[in-house]
Amino acid sequence: MIETNDPNLRCWLDEANDAACDFPIQNLPLGVFTRRGEDTDRRRVGVAIGRHVLDLSIAWPELCPDLAGLGASLFSQPTLNPFLASGRRTWTLVRNRVSRWLRTTSAELRDNGELRVRCLIPMSETVMHLPVEIGDYTDFYSSKEHATNVGMMFRDPSNALLPNWKHLPVGYHGRASSVVVSGTGVHRPCGQTNPEDAPAPNFGPCRLLDFELEVGFITGPGNELGRPIDVNHAHEHIFGMVLVNDWSARDIQKWEYVPLGPFTAKNFATSISPWVVPIDALDPYRVRTPRTEGDPPVQKYLDGAWDWNFDLNLQVGLQSTQMRERGDAPAIISRNNFSLMYWNMCQQLAHQTITGCNVRPGDLYASGTVSGTTPDSRGSMLEICWKGTQPLTLSTGEQRKFLADGDTIIMTGACHRPGLPRIGFGEVRGTILPAIGG
Amino acid sequence: MIETNDPNLRCWLDEANDAACDFPIQNLPLGVFTRRGEDTDRRRVGVAIGRHVLDLSIAWPELCPDLAGLGASLFSQPTLNPFLASGRRTWTLVRNRVSRWLRTTSAELRDNGELRVRCLIPMSETVMHLPVEIGDYTDFYSSKEHATNVGMMFRDPSNALLPNWKHLPVGYHGRASSVVVSGTGVHRPCGQTNPEDAPAPNFGPCRLLDFELEVGFITGPGNELGRPIDVNHAHEHIFGMVLVNDWSARDIQKWEYVPLGPFTAKNFATSISPWVVPIDALDPYRVRTPRTEGDPPVQKYLDGAWDWNFDLNLQVGLQSTQMRERGDAPAIISRNNFSLMYWNMCQQLAHQTITGCNVRPGDLYASGTVSGTTPDSRGSMLEICWKGTQPLTLSTGEQRKFLADGDTIIMTGACHRPGLPRIGFGEVRGTILPAIGG
Repeated sequence: MIETNDPNLRCWLDEANDAACDFPIQNLPLGVFTRRGEDTDRRRVGVAIGRHVLDLSIAWPELCPDLAGLGASLFSQPTLNPFLASGRRTWTLVRNRVSRWLRTTSAELRDNGELRVRCLIPMSETVMHLPVEIGDYTDFYSSKEHATNVGMMFRDPSNALLPNWKHLPVGYHGRASSVVVSGTGVHRPCGQTNPEDAPAPNFGPCRLLDFELEVGFITGPGNELGRPIDVNHAHEHIFGMVLVNDWSARDIQKWEYVPLGPFTAKNFATSISPWVVPIDALDPYRVRTPRTEGDPPVQKYLDGAWDWNFDLNLQVGLQSTQMRERGDAPAIISRNNFSLMYWNMCQQLAHQTITGCNVRPGDLYASGTVSGTTPDSRGSMLEICWKGTQPLTLSTGEQRKFLADGDTIIMTGACHRPGLPRIGFGEVRGTILPAIGG
Repeated sequence: MIETNDPNLRCWLDEANDAACDFPIQNLPLGVFTRRGEDTDRRRVGVAIGRHVLDLSIAWPELCPDLAGLGASLFSQPTLNPFLASGRRTWTLVRNRVSRWLRTTSAELRDNGELRVRCLIPMSETVMHLPVEIGDYTDFYSSKEHATNVGMMFRDPSNALLPNWKHLPVGYHGRASSVVVSGTGVHRPCGQTNPEDAPAPNFGPCRLLDFELEVGFITGPGNELGRPIDVNHAHEHIFGMVLVNDWSARDIQKWEYVPLGPFTAKNFATSISPWVVPIDALDPYRVRTPRTEGDPPVQKYLDGAWDWNFDLNLQVGLQSTQMRERGDAPAIISRNNFSLMYWNMCQQLAHQTITGCNVRPGDLYASGTVSGTTPDSRGSMLEICWKGTQPLTLSTGEQRKFLADGDTIIMTGACHRPGLPRIGFGEVRGTILPAIGG
């Protein structure tokens, strides 16, 4: 076990030792922030600890004078990309140093009140930004339960999975420009649809607007064009993970997606959580990728020695405008777990690069919708309401088959198990704004 | 007509006035170059004129002291992105200034021998680089002839076009990281395939490796997320165009592409020509987007007042290793014209953004394979050899159904018409290297 994962480690910032806290000393996720009121060109890198942000652009040069140069080149930066490009050796160095400053046994920051005021900022006084400049965004389709649900609804219920699905991690290239950070409002898109029995295609606001609960990983240095990443070394290219909401316009998607895949139905927005949780922090929660008897053997290039699924609990909350106005808490409309994913991240990265495609620091790779085996564990409105046939009733009496204007979707994720520290992801949140024009 | 398009304009560099020259004074495409032997971090912006490159990082501050600052911020840069971000007003300013320096009537550069030596470099002494850092790459599918050919081969010959095809410009997101500049070798990819009648999928080097002849456009400032680009203003967001070779692994594509579209079969490499030809230079060659009786009306958001198809002649050459060794010229295996494209660039950009997707400076949008109506005008080996049933015979007696190791594909493009200057694109060239490992 790496030192920073010791479950007995405690932080002198007591809030970080609370069992319900997403950001204990064993987590140390990185993000990009400004203080409220500061200009966005002041963006810099911080670490979440308890309910505070530790400003690495200030703390690093003060506490690591031996490596002060790293502070400017990695942390006084508007994105994590330089840090991601620096590679695993530097990631580990930074993780170990930050962990040491924060331990109850360490006085260097704890007892330096002047420095603490400058570099430890309450989260409530910060604004979080997109943590990375995303070079390319890939979206996989790796939940067997999700692919089966979709296949049952739209194709043959008795033969729901397509022939290729258990042989390779199906995926497609998404749009990087429209990946936004949690909290960004999302306008209902307008587009072309072709309802059954209509004489010609329609144009107007999307009527079947949906979310997709996903988890994404963000890469480090990457590979040279033409040289695939070996599945057994793929984890070395992964720095950390975020929650992903892959907003989807189902009616637009249905009309446009044959034969080249989803396009304008997905490219209007994808929301991610602001804190990138290091996979090193998730190590104690690693579980085997599930296979059952009868599953076909995987190709050698996908057959890795390491399983990098995580026992990560996920949930989705929905709060309508009426609920918000009445003070009703969000309805939890899905609870499931990332560990069920049929294809793991190493397999996804090995497959993405098998023909020679190059990976760069700051690429985002999303899992595809995470759905469980039970009706309350489905990861999209399409599945939860089963194509509109099983509407949800909210605390206000309102019904939903898909998302309405004003609805807020809040996704959260955390690893937790008795005897281990909680490793939380925080949240990714987004509210549907009315269509523009239309 | 804009001043720089005057067909009577002549350059004091006489080679640029040759009727066969791709780069006369009416063209002025921009690219990124270094001198041979220089480090790649010396990359900077130049203009092609005749058989020379005009170094704007040197010429601009000397010849435009009133706007010297622009030189450093736009031209002493490793990509065209800052120039692209500067917008149409600056693009026009630069185009007019450079045009003026080069006219026979202008002495400021012509008669300054010392400056000419420093800033006018023979193309043979330069190395061209990728002209832009591509934020996102989209690939459309806008040739009716190509879509019909593919539909005839793989689906119903009597009903070859899918129902959505004439209602919207079908497209998908491609991989930006693997876009490479002309001249870059491309390793034959390895991947998963599932030949008919095989008991299980195979793994190995691609056996049906192909090119796709395409033309791409590169964008300027772009739009805010959530605010679509109006089809009547779309041309204002387009700086210029390049030739695109969208390398494709047909056997890998066939197995992986359902239901989310092409992925590893396309993401291993896409080659582009190094000179970005301004659409302003192409203006005299603008032609109407073709529609025939019975074609459905287009949605209002795709119905623009301007037609931005161009009468651009394209051709594809193939030269095998044996041909190269014998000194045989490349075989011209396709000749066609971009003007036949059913969906034009403004429609593509309006559609790409209709749901609110944002466009950024340096995005690349490719047309999809350009195929004509006759057998000698098809834009891929798949079509030329009709799924392998009509092999090509080369001058050496070698036969081809798809590409062999060592084959070089050379795509060229030029607008030319009596009484108008030739506006050439140069070439995009790539050679198939053997598979690595496999």
